[in-house]
Amino acid sequence: MVSKKKVVHSKTVEDATKAALARRRVTIQDIADIVYEMQLPYNPELEMSYCVESVNSVLEKRELQHAILVGIELDELAEQGKLSAPLQQIVESDEGLFGVDETIALGAVFTYGSIAVTTFGYLDKNKIGIINELDTKKGRGIHTFLDDLVASIAASAASRIAHKTRDNEEASGEISEEITEDKP
Amino acid sequence: MVSKKKVVHSKTVEDATKAALARRRVTIQDIADIVYEMQLPYNPELEMSYCVESVNSVLEKRELQHAILVGIELDELAEQGKLSAPLQQIVESDEGLFGVDETIALGAVFTYGSIAVTTFGYLDKNKIGIINELDTKKGRGIHTFLDDLVASIAASAASRIAHKTRDNEEASGEISEEITEDKP
Amino acid sequence: MVSKKKVVHSKTVEDATKAALARRRVTIQDIADIVYEMQLPYNPELEMSYCVESVNSVLEKRELQHAILVGIELDELAEQGKLSAPLQQIVESDEGLFGVDETIALGAVFTYGSIAVTTFGYLDKNKIGIINELDTKKGRGIHTFLDDLVASIAASAASRIAHKTRDNEEASGEISEEITEDKP
Amino acid sequence: MVSKKKVVHSKTVEDATKAALARRRVTIQDIADIVYEMQLPYNPELEMSYCVESVNSVLEKRELQHAILVGIELDELAEQGKLSAPLQQIVESDEGLFGVDETIALGAVFTYGSIAVTTFGYLDKNKIGIINELDTKKGRGIHTFLDDLVASIAASAASRIAHKTRDNEEASGEISEEITEDKP
Repeated sequence: MVSKKKVVHSKTVEDATKAALARRRVTIQDIADIVYEMQLPYNPELEMSYCVESVNSVLEKRELQHAILVGIELDELAEQGKLSAPLQQIVESDEGLFGVDETIALGAVFTYGSIAVTTFGYLDKNKIGIINELDTKKGRGIHTFLDDLVASIAASAASRIAHKTRDNEEASGEISEEITEDKP
Repeated sequence: MVSKKKVVHSKTVEDATKAALARRRVTIQDIADIVYEMQLPYNPELEMSYCVESVNSVLEKRELQHAILVGIELDELAEQGKLSAPLQQIVESDEGLFGVDETIALGAVFTYGSIAVTTFGYLDKNKIGIINELDTKKGRGIHTFLDDLVASIAASAASRIAHKTRDNEEASGEISEEITEDKP
Repeated sequence: MVSKKKVVHSKTVEDATKAALARRRVTIQDIADIVYEMQLPYNPELEMSYCVESVNSVLEKRELQHAILVGIELDELAEQGKLSAPLQQIVESDEGLFGVDETIALGAVFTYGSIAVTTFGYLDKNKIGIINELDTKKGRGIHTFLDDLVASIAASAASRIAHKTRDNEEASGEISEEITEDKP
Repeated sequence: MVSKKKVVHSKTVEDATKAALARRRVTIQDIADIVYEMQLPYNPELEMSYCVESVNSVLEKRELQHAILVGIELDELAEQGKLSAPLQQIVESDEGLFGVDETIALGAVFTYGSIAVTTFGYLDKNKIGIINELDTKKGRGIHTFLDDLVASIAASAASRIAHKTRDNEEASGEISEEITEDKP
C-alpha cells in the first residue's frame, strides 16, 4: 500500500516488548509483586490485581517500550558475545561505573514524575524480588540492562498508583476542597 | 469535617495555577501560538483549537501546576524585593549561570518524554512569541522563572500533539501494521 | 567600579550557601556521616576525612549552591507563613505528590551522573541520619526542600568518591590495562 | 596478574571512544566548530583552540564515553542489519517518536548542568554543521544515535566553556565581589 507511511506500528512494538520480557523470563506478576511491596505502606487497601493492571498500563507507553527493546537487545547481544570490545566486557561484567543502563531506564521513569525517579533509585539499590534474581553478578545470563528496566517499569507503575489513589480520594470526597486565602 | 485529610485539593491547585498565569499576563492563547508554530512543520493540517486544547490538557497535570506555582512565587517575591541576598540579586538579574529556573521547568517537561525535552531546549534559546516578551532583561518585571515555565508548558503541549497525532494515524489505518520478522 | 559586571560573585554565593545550611542546623559532618554510610560497603578503607572533603568539594559547585539557596529560601518563607496560598499549605504539609523539592534537588544530582541519581532516590526513601531528623512531618520547623537537598549533597559526594576511587585504583596499577580485541 | 580486578581500564574506554568517532568520520574539529558557533555570541574573544580543548576535555568523562560506545554500536549493528525486528526498522528509519537516542545523549549532557541540557535541545532541532550531515534521513549510513551524541558532546563542551569563562572573569577581578545585604 503505497500511500501508507512505512513506520513500525505501535501494536508491533507493544507485542515485541511483551515478547522480549517473556523471553527473558520476566512476568507481569513478577513486576506487580514489586509494585505491591513498594505501595502497600502508603495504601493499605491496595489489591494485587490493581498492581497488575498498573504494570500493564505503563507497558503501553512508547517511551518505556523503546527502552525495553533497546536494553534487552544489548543484554542478548552481550550474551551472544556479539558486542565490540570494550563494550562487550563492560556489559558482560555489569560494571559499577557504567551508567547507560540506568540512563535508559531513567528516561522512561521520568515520564511518571519525581516520585517515580526516587522509587527507581531505591529499587536500583534495594534489589527487590525479580530484580535481585536478575543480578548479572549471580551468573545466570547477562541482565545488565534488564534489572534496571524492571526497576523502571515497577517504579512507573507504583508512581501511577500513587497519583491515581489521590485522584480517587478526591473524586470520592475523602479529600475536601479546601478554602484557601491569599496571603494578606 | 474531621475525617477528611487536610491536603490541598487538586481543583484548588489547578485554579491557583491558572490565576497565577493570568496575573502574570500569560494567556492560554499565547502559549498555544508557540505550540502551533512548533508543530505545524510536522503536521500541516494542525488546527489552532487543537493547540489550545493541548495546552489546557497539560495544565491539568500536578507536576506542571506545582512547578508553575513555585516559579511564579519566586518571580513575584523577587519583584517585591522579598528574597534574601544574594538570591534576590541572582533572580532579579536573571543570571545566565543560574539554572534552577530551567531545572524546575525541566522537571515538568520530562513527563512528556524526550521530544518535550529537546523542544524545551530549543524554546529556551529561540525565545518565540510571549517567551521573548517575558525576557527579564527587557525590564518590564521579573520573569526569570516564568519564561522557562512557558517554554515548558508549550514543549509539553507540542510533545503531546506529536504523540497523539501518531496514535490517530494508526487508529485511522494511515499507518499499516507492518509484517516484522525476527533476525535469522 | 563602572566597568565591572554587576553579577553576584561566586564567593558570595558559596558563603551564602554555607551560611544557609548552618542556619538550618545542618553541618558538613552530618552530611559526611551519610556519605560514609553509603560508600563504606563499596570501599572498606574509606576514611571519614575523605567524606568531609568530598562534601566540601561538591558544595563548591554552582548548580548545587543555587539549588540550596532556592530550597532553603522556600522552607524559611513557609515557616514565616509568607508564601501564597495554596503553595504555603503544600510546602507546610510536605505533600507526598508535590515534586518540586525532589526536582530542584535532582537538578544538582544529575551533574554527578547516574550513580548519584540512584543514590539520591535511595536516600529519599531510606532517610538516613540528619535527613530523617529533618523530616517536616516530625514537626520541628519546615524542611520540605532541605531534606531533599541534603540527600542531593550526600548523593553527589558519594558518587564523587565512587568515581575518584576508581581513578585512584587505575593510577596505582591496581587495575591493569586490559588487552581488548575487536569482535571478529 | 591474579590480584588485579578484571575491569576495563579507563584508557581502553577512552581510546575506543575516539576510535569509534573516527570510524564514523566525526572529527574533534567538526564538534569544535559547533561549540564555537554556539558560544561566540556570549564570548566574542573565544578562540577555536579553546573549543578544541574543551571537546577533548569532555571526551575524557566516563559518562560520555559510555554513551558514545553504546550509541555507535547500535548505529553500526543497524547498518549491518543485525538488530532484531522491530528495533532494526525503528533505528534504521530514525523514527521521530523513538527517544532512546535522545535519552542516552541526555544522560551524558546532564553532567554539565542545565545550560548543557538546553543547548542540547537547541542542537537537536537546529542541526548545525556535522550534525546536519549525519542526518540518517539523508541516506548515507545510519546515524540515529550519532547525531544526538555529537549534539551531546558539543553541548557539554559549550557549557564547560560558559562556566570556565565566568570563573576566569571572577579570578581576573573583572567581576567584583559584591556587597550583599540580608533582607531586613
